[in-house]
Amino acid sequence: MLKFDEQKQLDSVNGALKLRGEINEVVDEICKKGYKNICWLGIGGTYASCMQAVVHMNEKTEIDIFVENASEYLTTGNRRVGEGTVVVISSVTGSTEEMVEGVKKVKQAGAQVIGFVDLESSTLAKSVDYNISYPLNEQLKFFMVADRFMYNKGEFPEYDDFYKEMDKYLAEALVEVEKAADDFGREFAEKHKDDAIHYFVGAGNQWGATYSYAMCYWEEQHWIRTKSIHSAEFFHGMLEIVDRDTAVTVFVGEDLQRSLSERVAKFLPRICGNYTIIDTKDYELKGIRPEFRGNISHLVMHAVTQRIDAHLEAINHHPMEIRRYYRRLKY
Amino acid sequence: MLKFDEQKQLDSVNGALKLRGEINEVVDEICKKGYKNICWLGIGGTYASCMQAVVHMNEKTEIDIFVENASEYLTTGNRRVGEGTVVVISSVTGSTEEMVEGVKKVKQAGAQVIGFVDLESSTLAKSVDYNISYPLNEQLKFFMVADRFMYNKGEFPEYDDFYKEMDKYLAEALVEVEKAADDFGREFAEKHKDDAIHYFVGAGNQWGATYSYAMCYWEEQHWIRTKSIHSAEFFHGMLEIVDRDTAVTVFVGEDLQRSLSERVAKFLPRICGNYTIIDTKDYELKGIRPEFRGNISHLVMHAVTQRIDAHLEAINHHPMEIRRYYRRLKY
Repeated sequence: MLKFDEQKQLDSVNGALKLRGEINEVVDEICKKGYKNICWLGIGGTYASCMQAVVHMNEKTEIDIFVENASEYLTTGNRRVGEGTVVVISSVTGSTEEMVEGVKKVKQAGAQVIGFVDLESSTLAKSVDYNISYPLNEQLKFFMVADRFMYNKGEFPEYDDFYKEMDKYLAEALVEVEKAADDFGREFAEKHKDDAIHYFVGAGNQWGATYSYAMCYWEEQHWIRTKSIHSAEFFHGMLEIVDRDTAVTVFVGEDLQRSLSERVAKFLPRICGNYTIIDTKDYELKGIRPEFRGNISHLVMHAVTQRIDAHLEAINHHPMEIRRYYRRLKY
Repeated sequence: MLKFDEQKQLDSVNGALKLRGEINEVVDEICKKGYKNICWLGIGGTYASCMQAVVHMNEKTEIDIFVENASEYLTTGNRRVGEGTVVVISSVTGSTEEMVEGVKKVKQAGAQVIGFVDLESSTLAKSVDYNISYPLNEQLKFFMVADRFMYNKGEFPEYDDFYKEMDKYLAEALVEVEKAADDFGREFAEKHKDDAIHYFVGAGNQWGATYSYAMCYWEEQHWIRTKSIHSAEFFHGMLEIVDRDTAVTVFVGEDLQRSLSERVAKFLPRICGNYTIIDTKDYELKGIRPEFRGNISHLVMHAVTQRIDAHLEAINHHPMEIRRYYRRLKY
């Protein structure tokens, strides 16, 4: 299999899950002292992960939570960020300008920051109140934070059972998804390698996946045009430009918004002859009980899209690490 | 001028502004009794207007406010909606299924609803706690609600001055914008009538305008493909697919997020030969002082895009009222 190192991926996910002790110490300390609200602060891909954390929490929580785009925060501001606010961020290099400035500003407002900044020597890593450094697995880290806050508030009673299964089965299950999805990934990449534009539709914790897969993978890394649209919004405008040949892919997950994407998936065949449905339900996830699958649908989808990426990169002879403009020009 | 009835438009805006007495009675009564938070509930175009109300309020307020998409609310739910929540909605026909069900659900949760449902005989109009019926001007109605809540909280001390100017000058100013933008609208429509895809970029209270102009006008009414992207996010992916011939339009407004769109506008000429900047600052708005212009930038932009629409419809011989699928098929 292309770009696939099974042991490395198992280690990566299992290593991320092992951060839970450290994460819980931080969250438990904050909960003990008390807090007012939680602000998920991001930009680009991390903004998408923030949206996923919030939609996940909305299923269960009464905690005052919100997503904030770092650039919007730096301009409009948000007066709900202040004393008692817990801000959660993630950054690989710690050098994304909007995040560096955003964290400065939330700190000035009196908030405390939990950071997942990989480069420990960066100013950003040093400027947060609690930093946990570990590569990749951003969503998993965010969800572990979210779940602990909800557990501490009595909103996630199945927490222990859930993480027992994650620790035991998640890494293996995701690796098996990749293997099962490899043929599909190759066929999909072959079929869509020349798309003038590709539409991605999704909802729930798949919405962040849809948004970032379209923007951070196809646009940024494959240089293929895309539009992402929330399944709920598909019927309020975008449907009118879909015809026989329009390339549309629906990401169907298993959280509470599944029905919104199923509605799009059911409608598409009537008007479109070039659609694809990727349904996380089609993948086994050995050892994980049905009611827990919704919490990790976005990770399953990511495992599937990784297979598309690996093949698309090879077929299009377009290395995913090159950028035309990003960090190559001043702007 | 095509599709332009000056007196009708003056009357429309002035009539909307006259709702303020009625709106203030409702808001003042709610504020007197006390409330916990404000939920702006919408879908499609009304969801876009909700986003505009929230970004406008974020400039000034500490009130706990949030946008909720009706379909997402019906599936994921939102436990922050309950006793003490004020929900604000808008609907022309009162028949949008997601809104009808959404309002039922927020009422069951204990919230009270302020509705702007045009068709007073609809079930939706009858199901809200306070209904105000008046056609068009959705954003203006929403902002009058938002501003009164902020005024009552002491967060909008310039309220009286601002609305004195609106009552006196807004309608006339917007009509003059349309006149001034008509030539531009025709040229823009001529140039872009055959676009395979058109990108719209915007921020602040222009973000809702960007999102809904792309989706509810070009896609739904002109059947032309678009992608809308927030100016803050433009640099985190989408920029990579812009080349010489890519059609990109930036909506630049005058609220606190202006700098985010200026950044895109300044960068585009380096990589693109087919861009357009629409800057609300280029329009006079007689009688309205500079510091108030940001609050109404989205209305100015709407006046400009109305001119594009009028010409595009004529040039493409595509009546804006026809739909391929929307409310013509079951889904």
